[in-house]
Amino acid sequence: MSFMENLEHKATEVRSIVCMGLDPTLEKIPVKAKTTEDKITKFYSNILEAMITEGVVPAAVKPNYAFFAQYGFDGLRALKDCIEMHQTKAIPVILDAKRGDIGKTSEAYAREVFEFWNADAVTLSPYLGTDSIEPFLKYSDRDKGVYILARTSNKGAVEIQNLKAGDNPIYIKVAERIVDWSRMTPGCVGAVVGATSLKEFRALSRFFVGSGQEVPLLIPGVGAQGGSAKDIIEGLKETGNELFMHRINSSSGINYAYERYGTDDYAGAAVKAINELNSEIRF
Amino acid sequence: MSFMENLEHKATEVRSIVCMGLDPTLEKIPVKAKTTEDKITKFYSNILEAMITEGVVPAAVKPNYAFFAQYGFDGLRALKDCIEMHQTKAIPVILDAKRGDIGKTSEAYAREVFEFWNADAVTLSPYLGTDSIEPFLKYSDRDKGVYILARTSNKGAVEIQNLKAGDNPIYIKVAERIVDWSRMTPGCVGAVVGATSLKEFRALSRFFVGSGQEVPLLIPGVGAQGGSAKDIIEGLKETGNELFMHRINSSSGINYAYERYGTDDYAGAAVKAINELNSEIRF
Repeated sequence: MSFMENLEHKATEVRSIVCMGLDPTLEKIPVKAKTTEDKITKFYSNILEAMITEGVVPAAVKPNYAFFAQYGFDGLRALKDCIEMHQTKAIPVILDAKRGDIGKTSEAYAREVFEFWNADAVTLSPYLGTDSIEPFLKYSDRDKGVYILARTSNKGAVEIQNLKAGDNPIYIKVAERIVDWSRMTPGCVGAVVGATSLKEFRALSRFFVGSGQEVPLLIPGVGAQGGSAKDIIEGLKETGNELFMHRINSSSGINYAYERYGTDDYAGAAVKAINELNSEIRF
Repeated sequence: MSFMENLEHKATEVRSIVCMGLDPTLEKIPVKAKTTEDKITKFYSNILEAMITEGVVPAAVKPNYAFFAQYGFDGLRALKDCIEMHQTKAIPVILDAKRGDIGKTSEAYAREVFEFWNADAVTLSPYLGTDSIEPFLKYSDRDKGVYILARTSNKGAVEIQNLKAGDNPIYIKVAERIVDWSRMTPGCVGAVVGATSLKEFRALSRFFVGSGQEVPLLIPGVGAQGGSAKDIIEGLKETGNELFMHRINSSSGINYAYERYGTDDYAGAAVKAINELNSEIRF
């Protein structure tokens, strides 16, 4: 089963296309533990347990490398724990690490991501071109996947990504490369497309459908960042997209939902937040 | 002393603008040790000792995150060791990690790089714009620095970086942003400009001098990748650059010089390789 088939399979099984981002922030984690590793690991394992018990399971998780690495070796050990615990429950793990380097170095990054962390997929930056991406694509025969940044969800995204090269903005030129890479190794190349700018989202969504290649989208930026899941679903439907291969990500909106709901039960609150997001998407 | 002043100071002191990349590759490290951490750490500490003894010290070192991280926690512990051992000898450490994410995530990456790894500088990708860079610039008051990718040394660099946006290629548009960021926080913003494409190298070198901002260049791609240190120095001189703030990087050409010289004395060979590079640059 290719990475993309796995995405579709999982979405059908859990009736959801929600990806839960893992953004550990110690100050917000109401767990007592001796070490930072235990604190983070306990927090996410309690949430995972509640999700399994309630039958409200995300269709992927996306640990954010930076949020773990900021806590040094303790944080990195927690990252390893979190990847393993979700894979044990057959939840695809997308490591959000935005790697991107020259070919030889990308080979080392691919080993890091797929052999050491053992992630199912990874986010990559397109700025260095094909030889920076290829080493990761070689892992498609082990059913691994990649998501290339096309249009990000942040304010500064316009500065480079929206520059016009000829008739098209850079994010479309990047999308052209993504389609090329997808043709080289079908079933494993996706794109990161932020939910915060609907115009760009629709343009990319339409572009990928028009290319004839199936390019799974990883869509961050809903919730805290201001994007709307409802608008995204409408955008996907309008542009003729099959929903089940895509993922809409929410991180702090799920991780720290307990703050919004005014409860101490952070695990229950996370389940509730996923449920709410699912119903916005009408699953 | 700002990061840039430190660069100039160090180059004057050691009469060199050579940066030694650290690219650990276990198969090429002729050191017997019980753990991967020890193997890597011993290799680089023996090279460091030989450099100090011979008085042939690089003007910076650039550990490549990927090459360490591919060996998991053992490799990451070796990275920590290597950063510390070079800083103990007052050699600036540029962590080559090509981070680049949305603002909030970049804050976590900046903590990782400058507080956990305690690097003196880091390489960054420009694709996400200003809010992805700013959190790193906040560390300029602790004399930290950043190098933003402008034009990389790899084959795929042309695909995005050489696209024309109006009259200028993307790498010049990125250089414009680099100059903006340098104006925001002078003395800490540099650029990565590969040595493999002289045309682009000269264009960027001229652009930065013309901007009136002092932008230190980190120049990879000499040696194994095919760039020539001599050509780079001529390019810098032609475009009116002060040499001492820049760094020309060589990684495997120094690390594994023993293979080229046909000797078992890898530490002596590394010293010899730095010496040769220094004389090409005419220090």
